[in-house]
Amino acid sequence: MNLELINTGSELLLGVTTNTHLTYFGQRLLSLGLRIARQTTVPDNVTIRSALEEAFPRCDILLVTGGLGPTRDDLTREIVAELLGRSLYPNAEVHQKIEKRLDRLGIPFHKTMLSQTLVPEGAEALHNEYGTAPGLYFPARIQPKTPHIFLFPGPPQELMPMFENQGIPILKQLAVSEKIVEQRIFSIIGMGETIVEEKIGLELSQDSRVEVGYCPKANEVDLRLIASPAVLEEVCPRVYQALGNHIASDKGESLEKVVVEQLRKNKETLAVAESCTGGFLSHRITNIPCSSEIFLEGFITYSNQAKSQTLGIPPSLIKSFGAVSEEIAKHLAEKALSLSGATHALSLTGVAGPDGGSPSTPVGTVFIGLASLEQPTEISKKFFLAERKIFKQLATQTALDMLRRRLLLTQHN
Amino acid sequence: MNLELINTGSELLLGVTTNTHLTYFGQRLLSLGLRIARQTTVPDNVTIRSALEEAFPRCDILLVTGGLGPTRDDLTREIVAELLGRSLYPNAEVHQKIEKRLDRLGIPFHKTMLSQTLVPEGAEALHNEYGTAPGLYFPARIQPKTPHIFLFPGPPQELMPMFENQGIPILKQLAVSEKIVEQRIFSIIGMGETIVEEKIGLELSQDSRVEVGYCPKANEVDLRLIASPAVLEEVCPRVYQALGNHIASDKGESLEKVVVEQLRKNKETLAVAESCTGGFLSHRITNIPCSSEIFLEGFITYSNQAKSQTLGIPPSLIKSFGAVSEEIAKHLAEKALSLSGATHALSLTGVAGPDGGSPSTPVGTVFIGLASLEQPTEISKKFFLAERKIFKQLATQTALDMLRRRLLLTQHN
Repeated sequence: MNLELINTGSELLLGVTTNTHLTYFGQRLLSLGLRIARQTTVPDNVTIRSALEEAFPRCDILLVTGGLGPTRDDLTREIVAELLGRSLYPNAEVHQKIEKRLDRLGIPFHKTMLSQTLVPEGAEALHNEYGTAPGLYFPARIQPKTPHIFLFPGPPQELMPMFENQGIPILKQLAVSEKIVEQRIFSIIGMGETIVEEKIGLELSQDSRVEVGYCPKANEVDLRLIASPAVLEEVCPRVYQALGNHIASDKGESLEKVVVEQLRKNKETLAVAESCTGGFLSHRITNIPCSSEIFLEGFITYSNQAKSQTLGIPPSLIKSFGAVSEEIAKHLAEKALSLSGATHALSLTGVAGPDGGSPSTPVGTVFIGLASLEQPTEISKKFFLAERKIFKQLATQTALDMLRRRLLLTQHN
Repeated sequence: MNLELINTGSELLLGVTTNTHLTYFGQRLLSLGLRIARQTTVPDNVTIRSALEEAFPRCDILLVTGGLGPTRDDLTREIVAELLGRSLYPNAEVHQKIEKRLDRLGIPFHKTMLSQTLVPEGAEALHNEYGTAPGLYFPARIQPKTPHIFLFPGPPQELMPMFENQGIPILKQLAVSEKIVEQRIFSIIGMGETIVEEKIGLELSQDSRVEVGYCPKANEVDLRLIASPAVLEEVCPRVYQALGNHIASDKGESLEKVVVEQLRKNKETLAVAESCTGGFLSHRITNIPCSSEIFLEGFITYSNQAKSQTLGIPPSLIKSFGAVSEEIAKHLAEKALSLSGATHALSLTGVAGPDGGSPSTPVGTVFIGLASLEQPTEISKKFFLAERKIFKQLATQTALDMLRRRLLLTQHN
């Protein structure tokens, strides 16, 4: 079945908000055997109408987000109803649900919210547990050649539960005859995409049963194979053979997920001492559910004083080697290890920029330390000339990979 | 001028990667008086061709990203050349630049990279400082009714410098006669969008000289006004009058930016003690350039042992009140303040979930503390029932707003 997604919202096109709906839908739909053939973003104006008119004849299922709110720039409900030639009627059940929700929050019903109680003839209202705007579902062929149409509210915290609980059950029935393909995503660290393609070989690239894709990321290449479960079963061992330990995950999991899971299996624990990455490594780790089982503590010793007072690194040492040095990275990791009582500790000290560099340690320099209870401390020096947030991503990616590789070795012993 | 953006990449539609290009371009283009009228995402297959053909007659400028790499799923260069009826020729200068870059990195030139040295007749190659794939620029009317076309590589770290240094100078010339509008984004905290619309009043909503938009975010509403500089000058004072201290910024700045800037102005410093948000507050603060002037230290005391050992909170206290309590939040903030020597300290302790709740402190509960050298400690109890990352966003947003409001008061005294 052909499925398209239209996201409405001037804030998306003005760069005020990043479109995370596409990411979410892409992931969830594939598990139903559905793929997004095309996605369009339009502003909160009449362009919505032409995007809808163009998409109708191209697709069997159309998902639309945004423009269901109470303000004047919310137009989706009205435009879709008009294109389908259906009138809007106040719906008592929807009205009641909105009032009930507002009651709980102690907010009075406001007359501008009346637009949200309107349901077009022939449409089904989808209940919004986390906001006032209900979603809408229009079955196919309300007009000749119109697809199944779903309207969802824009805010992710409202859209996601609505899609999970009400969208997916309907879509499952619509997609019941879809051929089930599976996606296998290999997260590959320490190798560029050209080398990955060469290593996995021509045979796989030219295998018509497999769709092969590459996505280069910060210090990572994601190799994507889409095929029937049987074909994947047959070809995946070849990928393992070709790429070995460079594969951090074959499920497209993030490096932090892989590391947290491995530590949990080993019943080991982790602490971190961060300077230049300012808490981003702790944040990545604690994004993973159950990370509290393995993550003991983060020392975000941003100032030199914090490095001395909290981690006991003598100011004289910082003065003689410089805060961004192999020696300080070593001390940070080892002190974080001993103070926290963890099995492993990672440290990062560097110059994220835009200011703060020097001839010997220019902006972009970072030293990464890994200390463990039963192995010698390892230090890696890297240089990432990139915008602040990308610098943080690259540096923490390298730190997590150092730990991943150490855990692999321990696992083998 | 009508401008559209086409992003190619199956990984975007499969939800493996989030489209951050749209955000970036949206922001950068507005400063040139240009807006994205429509954005389309297509997979790495022949859909690229139809999306291009449909966009050509609709627009004056077309930006295309992705599909310029060396692997088999990179098709953009070839399809655009074919649609424009132009042949591809090896370009010696491009070849040389790629070899020079690879040399520096110690990587041999690989024959699959030859495709990247091809430049269509009539196109200008855009140099890639951070990767091998050059961009391409095709002036308008290569075929009747074809727009100015820019092809950029997909990886953001390659695309952004190329766009800044080579794309913008060309676009500036093309957009020289555009009417200059400005965007003013008010970041509003502690008020829903219905109330914001009511407060700013009908007069502004119906003013045809102003484009008004709303974007609800996690614990924030962004109110967007687009108009000529003179009209903005006239209407903005009304917004201030209506919304007062709820406005954190009138430049759409993040709350962390506002707080970091205010601390810098005051020559004050900050430390944080985080439990449930696991470093995310430190990360948000240290994302801001020059945050090192004001941010001293983060104590990510995730385990109870860390709370006791690093911040000296007696285990008996944790046992009697529970780690997620008003008392512990108070101690965390005050200890972070005294140990770091900062002017202000924020603390967060809560239950991010999915596990770990109890009847008295269910999943979603969070206590936020703010301790300052010269003011009494303030504790706020909140409840955010949301997915782990959104929980972190909501909790840190509240913490930053508590500090913002305290800084406003100090500023007035």
